[in-house]
Amino acid sequence: MNLPIIRYILGHIIKLEGLFLLLPFLVALLYRESTAYTYLSLAVAGFAIGFLLTRRKPENTVFYLKEGCVTTALSWIALSLLGCLPFYFTGEIPSFTDALFETVSGFTTTGASILSDVEALSHSSLFWRSFTHWIGGMGVLVFLLAIIPLSGGSHINLLRAESPGPSVGKLVPKMKTTARILYLIYLAMTIIEILILFVSGMPLFDSVTLSFGTAGTGGFGVKNSSLADYTAFQQWVVTIFMILFGINFNAYYLLLFKSIRQAFKIEEVRWYLAIIAASTGVIFLEILDTMENGFQALTHAAFQVASIITTTGYSTLDFNAWSSVCKVVLVLLMFIGACAGSTGGGIKVSRILILFKAIRAELTSYIHPKSIRRIKMDDKPLEDAMIHSVNVYIATFVILFTASVFVISFDGHDLITNFTAVAATINNIGPGLELVGPASNFGFFSPLSKYVMIFDMLAGRLELFPLLLLFHPRVWKA
Amino acid sequence: MNLPIIRYILGHIIKLEGLFLLLPFLVALLYRESTAYTYLSLAVAGFAIGFLLTRRKPENTVFYLKEGCVTTALSWIALSLLGCLPFYFTGEIPSFTDALFETVSGFTTTGASILSDVEALSHSSLFWRSFTHWIGGMGVLVFLLAIIPLSGGSHINLLRAESPGPSVGKLVPKMKTTARILYLIYLAMTIIEILILFVSGMPLFDSVTLSFGTAGTGGFGVKNSSLADYTAFQQWVVTIFMILFGINFNAYYLLLFKSIRQAFKIEEVRWYLAIIAASTGVIFLEILDTMENGFQALTHAAFQVASIITTTGYSTLDFNAWSSVCKVVLVLLMFIGACAGSTGGGIKVSRILILFKAIRAELTSYIHPKSIRRIKMDDKPLEDAMIHSVNVYIATFVILFTASVFVISFDGHDLITNFTAVAATINNIGPGLELVGPASNFGFFSPLSKYVMIFDMLAGRLELFPLLLLFHPRVWKA
Repeated sequence: MNLPIIRYILGHIIKLEGLFLLLPFLVALLYRESTAYTYLSLAVAGFAIGFLLTRRKPENTVFYLKEGCVTTALSWIALSLLGCLPFYFTGEIPSFTDALFETVSGFTTTGASILSDVEALSHSSLFWRSFTHWIGGMGVLVFLLAIIPLSGGSHINLLRAESPGPSVGKLVPKMKTTARILYLIYLAMTIIEILILFVSGMPLFDSVTLSFGTAGTGGFGVKNSSLADYTAFQQWVVTIFMILFGINFNAYYLLLFKSIRQAFKIEEVRWYLAIIAASTGVIFLEILDTMENGFQALTHAAFQVASIITTTGYSTLDFNAWSSVCKVVLVLLMFIGACAGSTGGGIKVSRILILFKAIRAELTSYIHPKSIRRIKMDDKPLEDAMIHSVNVYIATFVILFTASVFVISFDGHDLITNFTAVAATINNIGPGLELVGPASNFGFFSPLSKYVMIFDMLAGRLELFPLLLLFHPRVWKA
Repeated sequence: MNLPIIRYILGHIIKLEGLFLLLPFLVALLYRESTAYTYLSLAVAGFAIGFLLTRRKPENTVFYLKEGCVTTALSWIALSLLGCLPFYFTGEIPSFTDALFETVSGFTTTGASILSDVEALSHSSLFWRSFTHWIGGMGVLVFLLAIIPLSGGSHINLLRAESPGPSVGKLVPKMKTTARILYLIYLAMTIIEILILFVSGMPLFDSVTLSFGTAGTGGFGVKNSSLADYTAFQQWVVTIFMILFGINFNAYYLLLFKSIRQAFKIEEVRWYLAIIAASTGVIFLEILDTMENGFQALTHAAFQVASIITTTGYSTLDFNAWSSVCKVVLVLLMFIGACAGSTGGGIKVSRILILFKAIRAELTSYIHPKSIRRIKMDDKPLEDAMIHSVNVYIATFVILFTASVFVISFDGHDLITNFTAVAATINNIGPGLELVGPASNFGFFSPLSKYVMIFDMLAGRLELFPLLLLFHPRVWKA
């Protein structure tokens, strides 16, 4: 294990977070809030610690998948530990566990909150809370790769550990350029959303924070009613941007630098859009009777579907009161998740696709036992190793999921609360059903359950293995 | 597709069922019940149809996995269609859908009932209902293989399609001998249970029917209170026999014909017993406060755990009223299921074991990307194809499960009812939670939901692919 390089990258991450903490400091100055001192002190502290850790460059800059995973996992833990301190020190979230939960929920773009009154927070803390979504969505290591020159090393291993989805492709041969392109597309789309929302009459602060939450598919709002009190137009803007941020970013790269046809040929994106359309249709028909008119039904159906499949977690109403059919559809979408290579969470559409293809191939093998049929995706044959690792991923997911539900059930709440609380955190969504429905929050869980969910949020965001690897004894052997 | 051989075997199965129907006819004579005529007529009809179908021997007796699967699936459907007629014609179950549900639930050893008053049935029908468990547990095709000489053909393909578990081993080189040994062990164990229960003071009729239900891991009782009103001793006898029938029958073969050491070395069996012990422990601690004494708590904990993990479905109390922790444990056991090669359902302990091993291997591959680590089971390396098919099996299971919950949710019941109703039928257990808890029944579902669950019960019993294959267009092509 190349510990010096891990220390070095971790130092950079902490330094970077110090810089990020200056943003809420500026917001605090703007709104003349007393939180300014806390944010400034922590920014300086973060920068200082980061500086100390990065002062000595490691001699050996080579690192492998193992180091990539461990660095990523530790970076996200460090990020959350430092990032939760403002909430704790300003006293806005008096419990450390709660502050950590809220911050991990932010960085992992979950959006599950322990706060019963979001509007009581200062502007600076609301900003910081939403900003964690934005940086967590595309990934902090990807950000690092985009700005600092890390000589040597297989940096693809950092990207691989941090990026969602079964496979990571570099867009261009150079890692740094790939990271830059990703962040530029991300930034540009975020700015467009901010502008549209602002022009539609939304206050600038709300436009910025909500766009951060949309871009990272996070879900923290700035009002207790989430998005219920905005206009239908603004809700539609957010719906569309949620869907856009749930699309594989390769599609945007192809759209910008190659051909439109190639972008629209990505199988995963087609299925993702088809699933959204079908789910919206089912829910639309189910809720039609309870709404004032068809347009309202469509607005709410599309919003909730987009919010859940992209694992954002905003809501325009309390879908906990919907029919069983709607709830089953939403729970299904919770697990399907967005596209690989997007900012969304969940199992990912491509993994589900690969599963279906593997099942079809298995059935065919019963008919022609000796024929070897390759599973194809986007007209390219998939490697067996990839199919295998998708399967193992889902198995691990199920086991972690089950174990979490088991531990949480000791709190004594009903099964649907337990089941959807874990589903909402491990898939980085935010709200679940029953006690953790969109009109409620996660504050009532025991500290043990909260730590289980903190673990699940991180595991879900980092796609399980980087985090689980920390517990493998052989990782820490010389 | 070799259609003549399929017709031929199907004919034998129907003829066999005609013979089986003479048993409840005899019971009806014994109790002087008017159902005797119905059972006799159907026995004759079954025998006649079977005779017609088997009159002409197929010229080509070769058949492959495809034919094996299709024959098995069709046999089970034919078996259920004929087997449900007594309930329907005697008027004891006036709806055909309900009669079919009850019969499929019987043959697949599910034990989910649509009856609210079991005790209203005639003795002959109660006997037939329990007998379907017994023949369905070990399998009707295995029975056929044990008694009739099918020349040529790869009969292993029939056994493979009907036997539970990821791999099927012949115990001895000759298929017929394997089938006979299996049924002899099965019969002997059933008789021992009947004798013990009878000697303990249980009425003979109850001893026989409950033993049929235990042996097949079915779950149909003869009292509305399931097993609540029997003595603690009798409940323990059933507990132990449920556990014994959930063990891989290879273990008994090794025990009888090879060495005890070999039998106890089977990894799956060890884990199966460990899971039972751990689950019983957790539930024991959870319910201790609510019981009169420790012995009573242990009796109920062990009984319910054994009943659910073996997918039998008997109950000694309404576990729907237990705490969340107990319910989570029980739901977990529903999915784990019994050992492969036993009469139990569920995903099977060996599949879960293989998954865990695959996950450990995946984690290790992050540390040593180039090392090839073979996954071993019982000290023998597992083939990649086997691991692959376990993964595909579980994926298919999850998808069928989800689709079923979706369709059933249109009935408008709560999510836990929907979820556990499907879990209880696809895993061939019987009772679920909430509206389908052990004190309730499945009668209230819509016909559509009932057909979905009929499909799930058959799919679960035949391990998905044989049944799904019927819907593959290429199977029916020349």
